Amino acid sequence: MTGHDTRPAYGVHSEVGKLRKVLVCAPGLAHRRLTPTNSGDLLFDDVMWVENAQRDHADFVNKLTERGVEVVELHDLLAQTMAIPEARDWLLDRKITANEVGLGLIDGTRAYLETLSPSRLATFLIGGLATTDLPEEYRTGYLALARESTGTREYLMPPLPNTLYTRDTTCWLYGGLTLNPLYWPARHGETLLMKAIYQFHPEYVGSTVWWGDPERDWGQATFEGGDIMPVGNGVVLMGMSERTSRQAVSQVATALFEQGAAERVVVAGLPRLRAAMHLDTVFTFADRDLVTLYPAIMEAVHTFSLRPSDKAAAGIEITDEGATAFVDVVAEALGLPELRVVETGGDVYASERQQWDSGNNAVALEPGVVFTYDRNTQTNTLLRKAGIEVVTIVGAELGRGRGGGHCMTCPIVRDPVDF
Amino acid sequence: MTGHDTRPAYGVHSEVGKLRKVLVCAPGLAHRRLTPTNSGDLLFDDVMWVENAQRDHADFVNKLTERGVEVVELHDLLAQTMAIPEARDWLLDRKITANEVGLGLIDGTRAYLETLSPSRLATFLIGGLATTDLPEEYRTGYLALARESTGTREYLMPPLPNTLYTRDTTCWLYGGLTLNPLYWPARHGETLLMKAIYQFHPEYVGSTVWWGDPERDWGQATFEGGDIMPVGNGVVLMGMSERTSRQAVSQVATALFEQGAAERVVVAGLPRLRAAMHLDTVFTFADRDLVTLYPAIMEAVHTFSLRPSDKAAAGIEITDEGATAFVDVVAEALGLPELRVVETGGDVYASERQQWDSGNNAVALEPGVVFTYDRNTQTNTLLRKAGIEVVTIVGAELGRGRGGGHCMTCPIVRDPVDF
Amino acid sequence: MTGHDTRPAYGVHSEVGKLRKVLVCAPGLAHRRLTPTNSGDLLFDDVMWVENAQRDHADFVNKLTERGVEVVELHDLLAQTMAIPEARDWLLDRKITANEVGLGLIDGTRAYLETLSPSRLATFLIGGLATTDLPEEYRTGYLALARESTGTREYLMPPLPNTLYTRDTTCWLYGGLTLNPLYWPARHGETLLMKAIYQFHPEYVGSTVWWGDPERDWGQATFEGGDIMPVGNGVVLMGMSERTSRQAVSQVATALFEQGAAERVVVAGLPRLRAAMHLDTVFTFADRDLVTLYPAIMEAVHTFSLRPSDKAAAGIEITDEGATAFVDVVAEALGLPELRVVETGGDVYASERQQWDSGNNAVALEPGVVFTYDRNTQTNTLLRKAGIEVVTIVGAELGRGRGGGHCMTCPIVRDPVDF
Amino acid sequence: MTGHDTRPAYGVHSEVGKLRKVLVCAPGLAHRRLTPTNSGDLLFDDVMWVENAQRDHADFVNKLTERGVEVVELHDLLAQTMAIPEARDWLLDRKITANEVGLGLIDGTRAYLETLSPSRLATFLIGGLATTDLPEEYRTGYLALARESTGTREYLMPPLPNTLYTRDTTCWLYGGLTLNPLYWPARHGETLLMKAIYQFHPEYVGSTVWWGDPERDWGQATFEGGDIMPVGNGVVLMGMSERTSRQAVSQVATALFEQGAAERVVVAGLPRLRAAMHLDTVFTFADRDLVTLYPAIMEAVHTFSLRPSDKAAAGIEITDEGATAFVDVVAEALGLPELRVVETGGDVYASERQQWDSGNNAVALEPGVVFTYDRNTQTNTLLRKAGIEVVTIVGAELGRGRGGGHCMTCPIVRDPVDF
Repeated sequence: MTGHDTRPAYGVHSEVGKLRKVLVCAPGLAHRRLTPTNSGDLLFDDVMWVENAQRDHADFVNKLTERGVEVVELHDLLAQTMAIPEARDWLLDRKITANEVGLGLIDGTRAYLETLSPSRLATFLIGGLATTDLPEEYRTGYLALARESTGTREYLMPPLPNTLYTRDTTCWLYGGLTLNPLYWPARHGETLLMKAIYQFHPEYVGSTVWWGDPERDWGQATFEGGDIMPVGNGVVLMGMSERTSRQAVSQVATALFEQGAAERVVVAGLPRLRAAMHLDTVFTFADRDLVTLYPAIMEAVHTFSLRPSDKAAAGIEITDEGATAFVDVVAEALGLPELRVVETGGDVYASERQQWDSGNNAVALEPGVVFTYDRNTQTNTLLRKAGIEVVTIVGAELGRGRGGGHCMTCPIVRDPVDF
Repeated sequence: MTGHDTRPAYGVHSEVGKLRKVLVCAPGLAHRRLTPTNSGDLLFDDVMWVENAQRDHADFVNKLTERGVEVVELHDLLAQTMAIPEARDWLLDRKITANEVGLGLIDGTRAYLETLSPSRLATFLIGGLATTDLPEEYRTGYLALARESTGTREYLMPPLPNTLYTRDTTCWLYGGLTLNPLYWPARHGETLLMKAIYQFHPEYVGSTVWWGDPERDWGQATFEGGDIMPVGNGVVLMGMSERTSRQAVSQVATALFEQGAAERVVVAGLPRLRAAMHLDTVFTFADRDLVTLYPAIMEAVHTFSLRPSDKAAAGIEITDEGATAFVDVVAEALGLPELRVVETGGDVYASERQQWDSGNNAVALEPGVVFTYDRNTQTNTLLRKAGIEVVTIVGAELGRGRGGGHCMTCPIVRDPVDF
Repeated sequence: MTGHDTRPAYGVHSEVGKLRKVLVCAPGLAHRRLTPTNSGDLLFDDVMWVENAQRDHADFVNKLTERGVEVVELHDLLAQTMAIPEARDWLLDRKITANEVGLGLIDGTRAYLETLSPSRLATFLIGGLATTDLPEEYRTGYLALARESTGTREYLMPPLPNTLYTRDTTCWLYGGLTLNPLYWPARHGETLLMKAIYQFHPEYVGSTVWWGDPERDWGQATFEGGDIMPVGNGVVLMGMSERTSRQAVSQVATALFEQGAAERVVVAGLPRLRAAMHLDTVFTFADRDLVTLYPAIMEAVHTFSLRPSDKAAAGIEITDEGATAFVDVVAEALGLPELRVVETGGDVYASERQQWDSGNNAVALEPGVVFTYDRNTQTNTLLRKAGIEVVTIVGAELGRGRGGGHCMTCPIVRDPVDF
Repeated sequence: MTGHDTRPAYGVHSEVGKLRKVLVCAPGLAHRRLTPTNSGDLLFDDVMWVENAQRDHADFVNKLTERGVEVVELHDLLAQTMAIPEARDWLLDRKITANEVGLGLIDGTRAYLETLSPSRLATFLIGGLATTDLPEEYRTGYLALARESTGTREYLMPPLPNTLYTRDTTCWLYGGLTLNPLYWPARHGETLLMKAIYQFHPEYVGSTVWWGDPERDWGQATFEGGDIMPVGNGVVLMGMSERTSRQAVSQVATALFEQGAAERVVVAGLPRLRAAMHLDTVFTFADRDLVTLYPAIMEAVHTFSLRPSDKAAAGIEITDEGATAFVDVVAEALGLPELRVVETGGDVYASERQQWDSGNNAVALEPGVVFTYDRNTQTNTLLRKAGIEVVTIVGAELGRGRGGGHCMTCPIVRDPVDF
């Protein structure tokens, strides 16, 4: 996928430098599939009012756009990709198989999808194709078996509601990206869509891929962007969590070191809790030297540093940072005397609630300007008192999958900052 | 894997014909890893007293042997296979990878495993290799990250306690077998061990494989032997359950039809309940024309017949059997006027309890002779009253993973019966 | 509590007649206590943005008021009651006991509460009093034990967030009311507050109580207003559910019959599902002869009629309505040829989602005018197409405890309708 | 219930002194009601093979008897009590009420029960009376409603399977006893049976009751014998756990101090975990100065001492023992230089498993002689190496409700030991 590159240089060089281009994914058909019965399997805590989630997401996009960010949307990007015949063939060859739609339904399903516009096809690729979506003329006797089955298997293509959280599926780390193997089966289909885009879309083809390929089985090596932060100064932070494993962390660190993309990886060993599913649910940057974090969980983090070494096994030297707090290790790695810290606001009840409601999941527009959910008023106030400009987005519906502004954005171009 | 075959002909030609050779797996290290914290993830309802489970399993094996069945045990088979250098290389190349043990631990782990006897290696392959099992001299700094991780990821090779249920991993269907893609991640490692055996063990190499390969990703096409019964007369019963999907059912049916191995597949569409995880948890054969079943669940089964057809899509004609009861469809498929039925015994409480305790999970030694757990006294009595010889095995510990005699046996040679 | 009555006549004579006076309870301190950790125990599916819930609730109250309904609020009513010294003594004698706050903390807690204004006291009675709320000067060494404890026991008085759903705690049925023993321990404290009001508040003292007394233990006889509907024509509907038991249903029916308050009780035997916790979550009236219901659950209802009888045991004759649909029994009981039915709207996903989001939980202002949540747009549209005026309220926060407009209102005065 | 006492002096004066008389309860009808569906509500982790549980329990009783302990059994004691007409009336008046069996079923149920022998009646009082147990001639139309209901409400009297654990329901503490308010609703019915015995049985009438009465509502003040140990020297240990609250601990301490029954209560503030439901699941005595404990949980215990005081509020002085380990506080309270400690045996997996399987739940016959389950072989070996005589009982079935020998015994007469 690497090769001659004629596009403007993509790359993410910090967590807070000026954001220039970002990938998001609007709520849609996939969220209309959510019910009280299946939402748990699909990793949502509750069902959504999809129209309002769409409105709130559009408002988020507008605010990004107004402030000069170029926003690209996944349905659009995928539709543009599906307009390219060889991309469509490539993707449908991999989606419409005996293992996924089932023997005897391949021809009908493929034939139906071939009749669709690129845009409608993209809608189904993200939103899922239920057996009931298949028009009568494309059905065969095999559909009887499908109706007998339940849950996600009643689909010919599964719905992918967690595409809303574009942060996780791919990560731009400095000048290249990773195509991530995600932890939960409910999200496995997301990365293949991204590969189609990076392989065929004229604006993305030729991007450097550091690591990852959804066509391979990665076993225990799962990796999610919510745990990963290219903070600048050659440093990448990686949360080692339920979803991002040591097996992946060490592989990606090696890939980055070997390709000269980074010089140090600081690993945050997180406790295994639903509330701390990713590093960015308890720790994000709001300014060059200011972070917002949830102390009750961050206190339990165990920190390691990985650095390239000719002498160590597999070329990585591992330093156990012992009793040094994660924020202090990060400050040192960035060459800062210290990081200013804004903790989750409110009393013991409110701070637990705000962390849960993505209160620490800020995404920066530029140094000192962040987006957060409106509902975390106490944490937002503390950020403002610390001099941060806080732009709020409505979280009533968008937050029900437990992700905020940081989760919903995959930066493609972000400037470095000076330390 | 097919090829010139000098072994005695393996094959399973019925559910109740004389059992001549069977594969079992004794409880062991994998079950010593079970704790109240991890047992749910490993699909066990409670922890086991391993020594007693071993005693009860040995008694089961003795009773099989005394009655003339050749019993092969998975640890033994795997140890014999691991004594073959190329088999050991083949398997360790696939197990000791960056995705599984993690970069930086590959060399040390492999080096340690290379020092082990075939038997000790087989113990770890089935029982798992914890980070604490790695001797000091094989450790590297990478182990620090592993200790930080939790659950099954603290392993360099995961424990596979469900190997106890050999029925699921591979199925002999008439003259060939399937290497099954299992549903739960906790069981994914089992099938690769079986492939090593069928690929390298001199007594098994050259066996005909109808379908399945653990080195491929099967997506939604999951298939477990507990749902599959080669009942004879060219018929195979398949439960379509939480664990065995329509995507797999139709592929295996096609593979059997194309290779002339079967003429009809009768599909039992099961409700999605933990108590009905496999067809054999609610329905098994005890004699040529006698089945034991749990009516509360079997009444909800929807039945289909699959037959080869030149005209239908993918070569399979599907018949919805509508209101006809599953047992009646099976009787008709076998050319019997009817099947005699022994329902789970006792009152409403006892029958629910006995189904749960594998009361309907009988395995036949020959027509009219079955093994069941001792605890299901009422169902056992009803079977005896129906003329069946019931040999009991102790289920206090063995049954805690919700499997009985049928689940714990993978027949390799079983005679046909006449209908 | 019965006796000479000088107040305007309170009473609820139908489900859809003109609503004149209603009791609600605004969100507040109790909801500020909700966290991801305790919300399940307190019967909420997710935490709330309390300020927005308050805004949305205030809007609901405004809309009720604008349309001529007199709205009374529980904090206000309780504060007015607590301004009466004997009422305050009566309630605190029952709340501040060794069994609730613990020995050694009684005097300090009582002394602190005695310093509070009636309004502040009402806030703590509903919102709970945490050990940390007790000022230093009222503390004793016993507080050390309290800090050691966890969950609801860290409270000196427990938070009662389900007071939001005033429907359940008391029911006006024609000219009198019931003081209900609620099912879940988390709600047991609610009814005592209501008894204080009905016993001491000058506008409520002397109300006729048909049945119930929070100072007695009712064992299995639990009864919740969400299951109870005085539909007029001498008929009361009662859902027999997880929360409303046959032991209570038969007692209340007897009490109503003996006191001449009703002539027939129509019982809906509901399946035991969280989604069908009360009859009013799947069935409410929107007009004199129009109901909105969720068919997937209502189809499973088994209907009985209870009528007074001198001959039957305990004075009640029970008729099993067999295969007759619940709506048809209700129509017949009301003397209507039939009930018009508006089902939950949308496809299979949307209707399941809307039922969950209180889509069928309408409360009528008068015949043909109802309040519902805004989010159930498809059901609301169907109601409008059937000629109903639908006034919407914002449900994003209020609905997270799984209750809508019907649950949040306890009618005190509602006119009859003609049939 | 106190008064002139002509019986041999009952009383429990230590945890390890010679055991002379003990109350147990054999498994029976209540356990035959357990199914996979209801076992969780009834606090059992899995269903039981009741006949084997009975056999293993009988063996336990035999071993106790052979070693000179007088064993009384709850069914027997209750049957003897029910042979006394006024006791039968007293108990049935409290059990067969509108709140429990339901209006309209009282007369029939009572009439049926009056026909039964005392022994048969005791069986139903402990085992529950299902609606299907009521003979045709005692039924009324009300039974139709009961069949509609589900779970424990299908009972006219609920099954009480946790009577197996007689330890919890009442505690002899030195010369008197407590009638305990139990935490879970599934156990609420147990204490009333015990009150009937202590009120009417000629061998028990006149016993001193320090505290507790099942006819009163104790609110948050719940108290279970598994948390309570009269260790001698005027000291009582009390676990403050999920099930035993500070509200009860302080009341019982006061009651003991006021009646001169004890001089000091040592409180173990336990973490709130299912595995640590009672103090005796993680800590018991095996000899005068030897305890067996599970360190992973005992390390998290926070210890307090309560002593009578004229000066402190409610007459109790509370000392926070701070960083001093619980065992050291206990040793000091007993006047011992230290306690010898035998930890749960085996590696990290085995010790977690053995604690779960009641490995630390020993009950002493006399100093240095204990009963434990056979399955915890490693902990048993460590106890033996420490010089303890360990008599084993079969735990395969009995242990499924998570209780061992200590839980299954309620000592009535036990000698003191010297310290």
